[in-house]
Amino acid sequence: MSGPQTPEPALDRQGDCSTGSGDEGAADGIQHSHRMLSFSDALLSIIATVMILPVTHMEITPEQKSDKSVQNLLATRIAVYLMTFLIVTVAWAAHTRLFQIVGKIDDTLALLNLACMMTITFLPFTFSLMVTFPEVPLGIFLFCVCVIAIGAIQALIVVYAFHFPHLLSPQIEDSAHRALHRRHILGIILQGPTLCLAAACFSLFFYPASYLLMATVVFLPYVSKAAGWCRDRLAGSREPPAHSLEFFTFDLHEPLSKERVEAFSDGVYAIVATLLILDICEDNVPDPKEVKAKFGGSLVAALGTSGPQFLAYFGSFVTVGLLWFAHHSLFLHIRKVTRPMGLLNTLSLAFVGGLPLAYQQTSAFEKQSPRELESVRVSCAIIFFASIFQFAIWTTALLQEGETLQPSARFGGREHAFMFAKLALYPCASLLAFASTCILSRFSTAIFHIMQIAVPFAFLLLRLLVRLALAALRALRGLTRPGRTQPAPRAMDDARAPLLPAPC
Amino acid sequence: MSGPQTPEPALDRQGDCSTGSGDEGAADGIQHSHRMLSFSDALLSIIATVMILPVTHMEITPEQKSDKSVQNLLATRIAVYLMTFLIVTVAWAAHTRLFQIVGKIDDTLALLNLACMMTITFLPFTFSLMVTFPEVPLGIFLFCVCVIAIGAIQALIVVYAFHFPHLLSPQIEDSAHRALHRRHILGIILQGPTLCLAAACFSLFFYPASYLLMATVVFLPYVSKAAGWCRDRLAGSREPPAHSLEFFTFDLHEPLSKERVEAFSDGVYAIVATLLILDICEDNVPDPKEVKAKFGGSLVAALGTSGPQFLAYFGSFVTVGLLWFAHHSLFLHIRKVTRPMGLLNTLSLAFVGGLPLAYQQTSAFEKQSPRELESVRVSCAIIFFASIFQFAIWTTALLQEGETLQPSARFGGREHAFMFAKLALYPCASLLAFASTCILSRFSTAIFHIMQIAVPFAFLLLRLLVRLALAALRALRGLTRPGRTQPAPRAMDDARAPLLPAPC
Repeated sequence: MSGPQTPEPALDRQGDCSTGSGDEGAADGIQHSHRMLSFSDALLSIIATVMILPVTHMEITPEQKSDKSVQNLLATRIAVYLMTFLIVTVAWAAHTRLFQIVGKIDDTLALLNLACMMTITFLPFTFSLMVTFPEVPLGIFLFCVCVIAIGAIQALIVVYAFHFPHLLSPQIEDSAHRALHRRHILGIILQGPTLCLAAACFSLFFYPASYLLMATVVFLPYVSKAAGWCRDRLAGSREPPAHSLEFFTFDLHEPLSKERVEAFSDGVYAIVATLLILDICEDNVPDPKEVKAKFGGSLVAALGTSGPQFLAYFGSFVTVGLLWFAHHSLFLHIRKVTRPMGLLNTLSLAFVGGLPLAYQQTSAFEKQSPRELESVRVSCAIIFFASIFQFAIWTTALLQEGETLQPSARFGGREHAFMFAKLALYPCASLLAFASTCILSRFSTAIFHIMQIAVPFAFLLLRLLVRLALAALRALRGLTRPGRTQPAPRAMDDARAPLLPAPC
Repeated sequence: MSGPQTPEPALDRQGDCSTGSGDEGAADGIQHSHRMLSFSDALLSIIATVMILPVTHMEITPEQKSDKSVQNLLATRIAVYLMTFLIVTVAWAAHTRLFQIVGKIDDTLALLNLACMMTITFLPFTFSLMVTFPEVPLGIFLFCVCVIAIGAIQALIVVYAFHFPHLLSPQIEDSAHRALHRRHILGIILQGPTLCLAAACFSLFFYPASYLLMATVVFLPYVSKAAGWCRDRLAGSREPPAHSLEFFTFDLHEPLSKERVEAFSDGVYAIVATLLILDICEDNVPDPKEVKAKFGGSLVAALGTSGPQFLAYFGSFVTVGLLWFAHHSLFLHIRKVTRPMGLLNTLSLAFVGGLPLAYQQTSAFEKQSPRELESVRVSCAIIFFASIFQFAIWTTALLQEGETLQPSARFGGREHAFMFAKLALYPCASLLAFASTCILSRFSTAIFHIMQIAVPFAFLLLRLLVRLALAALRALRGLTRPGRTQPAPRAMDDARAPLLPAPC
């Protein structure tokens, strides 16, 4: 894959890079960690999303609906899904941080990483055990054992990497205080497992204390993030903190690697989009005997009965695809992912993972029942939250736009208005659909399907529409104030929108 | 994510690249296609692997085992899985080629690509319809409609990209014969859909002809690949063909993008590893009522009954993980992926996708039954084929080592013997386990589990062992022929192994 005949610059670069790394490192088996990290991201994103399956596979008949125990079970499963998602995301963030310190890998580190992944795959199981048997301490005990095992493996990775310093990232490798760094990093890594060790001990005689400790482990990073962010906001400290220093202290507030945030998000979107086809392929191929008995051998008639499923699948795939598209467009304009943005991204993804639930809701309902109305509303709510958190990433990025955004996406940049419209499309559409179902409750399904069909066209025409709107605005301004021709920030945009001249 | 404080060179480069692309392209919404391609790879790899689920979810009781219809159903489902895998891989290869021509994307292309993905997700469903109702032409009709739709979207992408030539890869953009290229590329893209249009027409009145046409569409690339490779081998043409010319003719023999082969393979490995945890989380959390009734409220006893499942899960995850590890090591040393190597990789992945079947087989058997022996043998066979095709990629690469391999991995290179040992480990271990079950059939399960536990340790110690072996060999040689100190190719290596001095 050398130079001239390779068509694509990006591929070319990548090819050259692997070529280079393969050649350099071959001597001692040292490799760049790029592919191992992508694989870990794929695994972790799938594990985070898996627990939506017990939720979507719960079949509730209309008679069971009023049954308290069934409602409780559903609520429990949704809680398990959300908590698992958060826990796996915490594990993923720790993994990201760890491999920002360890820059290169060799075979031993690759195998240790696989062991770490395998332990993480067990977290969802221990967690659902915990929720199904809240009064039996075994679940929390197993959970703590998993966390301790993960911590031990990560500590082993750090010790190994510091033992062979050429595996470390260049900054730490060249640093004079390497031993100090090692102690500091090990301290941070072992915080969670130490708390879990205490929790495991407590689980043997007084399990409520274990739950408290566990909650501390899981929520501490989030709470500290949110608190830090609020403090920064209140104190109004606008200048970017000194990052080079921050990196060396392995601080919890350091920005996440943008590439890995993208890879993790891609994994979640991909698995959510295909969880649906998985169900369709397994459940919607009719049984030959049934076709003969019920439909007189007519396959078309048999497939017709699962028509709503296919429609819902299309709608759902389109929604996941377009949410990915919005995410992709947004991250093209982002330079750095700060911790609040990472948290908002996690929340958005958690709702994206709930989309199969929306699919199952809209595909299962019968016509004109109160259940139909409710299903459409749940779907609208899930889509709304998934997209509004994406929008929140964008607004959070705008708060520190100098650091986090490309010039073209900042206030007054060429892409600003377009980006704004792109991200506002789904929140507006789902909100509109929700509101319409309140007024025209009889047509709720039709409204929902119209929304799902209309949004892709809106995306296709968006650039055109935004350009037209901007041109119109500009023309209007040109008439009133000749000489100023920058794209006008839209009215809803933000009260603080400064009317800066466009950068070029 | 600018320069100095980013720790990892690969991440840094990536970050810079996205930064660059976001900034350059922001003006007209043009973007590098890197992330869209990764997302497509993830989607396609999951779709390719999905059809193993109907196979693994088939529960066969010992009484049903002799039932012909159940055996037929199982065979059918396995055939559906393998065929789907091949079909989706063909679609993936076409997609790879297409985006070697289209180097950059804008919003319209991203949306068209999503539409293409959605159509591809329907292929497994139409295919299982086809197999379940072989005599009803609806299945093949829908399949053909899908292929035609995919072709139409791809043609649209090509027409759009040629309309805005800055989206094309630089070579085609700068070429003087652009119109000629366009006609040629469209011709190749529309070949399959045209055949499928004929098949769709035939399906309405004489469906066997449709099957014949469909088989042509699916197998033509593979047959032509194999034939071309055999021809090359027989004619003994060792010199690399003129690639720059080949690329411009958009020939079927051009090498695949190594990065995308890796991404697709990663997707398959990741989804296979997690299909298992998905089953465990859904099926192995015991029911509280059952625990109270059957096990006197003892959760440990209840979990003990599904102990074999957990053991099998561990074994299976370890196997998938280590096969990924071997693949990863192999591709570190590969510079270019030729078509025969791509085909062998597909076959290896198809067997990797079968590993959940092995898991289900080993987790479901009862002690000391003939079923147990059979299950262990099936598992060994699946692992053997998955790993032997990896080994075949390596030997195929060695046939053209100048073109395809890094210097260090070629004959006489420093990593050659080690790579050889790494790739030979699983075929040898599974073959050994299979042979042992023939002799010691009573201990087949124990043998299988010992193999699964021993192999990771073998991987950890491999470098040490190979070094020791090489040092011993070298010492031996040094005694007999002083002055030659290169690492000796191992005895089994290859009869043609030239005793070249090591490159450095």
